[in-house]
Amino acid sequence: MTQEQGLVLIYTGNGKGKTTAAFGQVLRAVGHGMRVCVVQFIKGEWSTGEVLAVGSLSDKVEVHIKGSGFTWLAEDKQEVVRVALDAWEFAKEKMMSGDYDLLVLDELTYLVTYEIIDQSEVVEVLKKRPAGLNVVITGRGVSPALIEVADLVTEMMEVKHHFRNGVTARKGIEF
Amino acid sequence: MTQEQGLVLIYTGNGKGKTTAAFGQVLRAVGHGMRVCVVQFIKGEWSTGEVLAVGSLSDKVEVHIKGSGFTWLAEDKQEVVRVALDAWEFAKEKMMSGDYDLLVLDELTYLVTYEIIDQSEVVEVLKKRPAGLNVVITGRGVSPALIEVADLVTEMMEVKHHFRNGVTARKGIEF
Repeated sequence: MTQEQGLVLIYTGNGKGKTTAAFGQVLRAVGHGMRVCVVQFIKGEWSTGEVLAVGSLSDKVEVHIKGSGFTWLAEDKQEVVRVALDAWEFAKEKMMSGDYDLLVLDELTYLVTYEIIDQSEVVEVLKKRPAGLNVVITGRGVSPALIEVADLVTEMMEVKHHFRNGVTARKGIEF
Repeated sequence: MTQEQGLVLIYTGNGKGKTTAAFGQVLRAVGHGMRVCVVQFIKGEWSTGEVLAVGSLSDKVEVHIKGSGFTWLAEDKQEVVRVALDAWEFAKEKMMSGDYDLLVLDELTYLVTYEIIDQSEVVEVLKKRPAGLNVVITGRGVSPALIEVADLVTEMMEVKHHFRNGVTARKGIEF
């Protein structure tokens, strides 16, 4: 049996729905018995609903929140970079492990945008990954080389957003 | 205690990710203990992964596939219209029941596009819904009046798609 080549899917753009679509992808994969790993690079200050729910889904899903407590506005830039690099090393190990059918790298693009890692390294790692592994990458400002290596890229465009009308983030909706 | 006004979220556009984001929203809501109902207006020819997985999530989630077996290309147009109208009546009952915190109307927009129902009726029903109910609507070609009534609208734009390179729909990825 030849293994199908895994796909690289990117959800980018300034609109809402990137992480949400990635978790929808997790749900879909789990429904078909796939083994899933999620690495979150930035989120993690609150308990998001999707992370709470995913735990009850299956023992085939892991979620790792690696960005907990750090912010791009932190005073200690060196610490931010250290945490981000650790997260990236962790994600690479997961990518190469052969233990998963789907790996979600949630908000990975910011590490490239903030020049913590180089896009060429991301591309190189993606090319060397196990053949059957599907990868979902989310975040704004995806770089051209990443688009080149991706099989599918969807840009989420904000058409209308209630935050602009003074509504604040809602539990169950935004997190 | 005053109940928070529920939101109307729309995921539209020609790119992949609309239904996926809606199911991510379901996952998020379930994580916070919300009661969820999904009505699918078109999908349902295969067992999609998200529908399989949602069943194991919680007894607070219902998925109703109302478009099973019908297609817009069917020879019997009257039957298509009948099934679609039944689905819409069903969805309206769910909307008004007060039994849910989140209602997903997956691919509802096609009923407006194909002039089976009028957008003004959708707007009217949304405005009369129970105060706390959040609604997610997906589908291409969302009409201006629906955008007007929505709190959030994200357009999924296709930047790149592997189907164009001859790759076919994959289990766990597209369904």
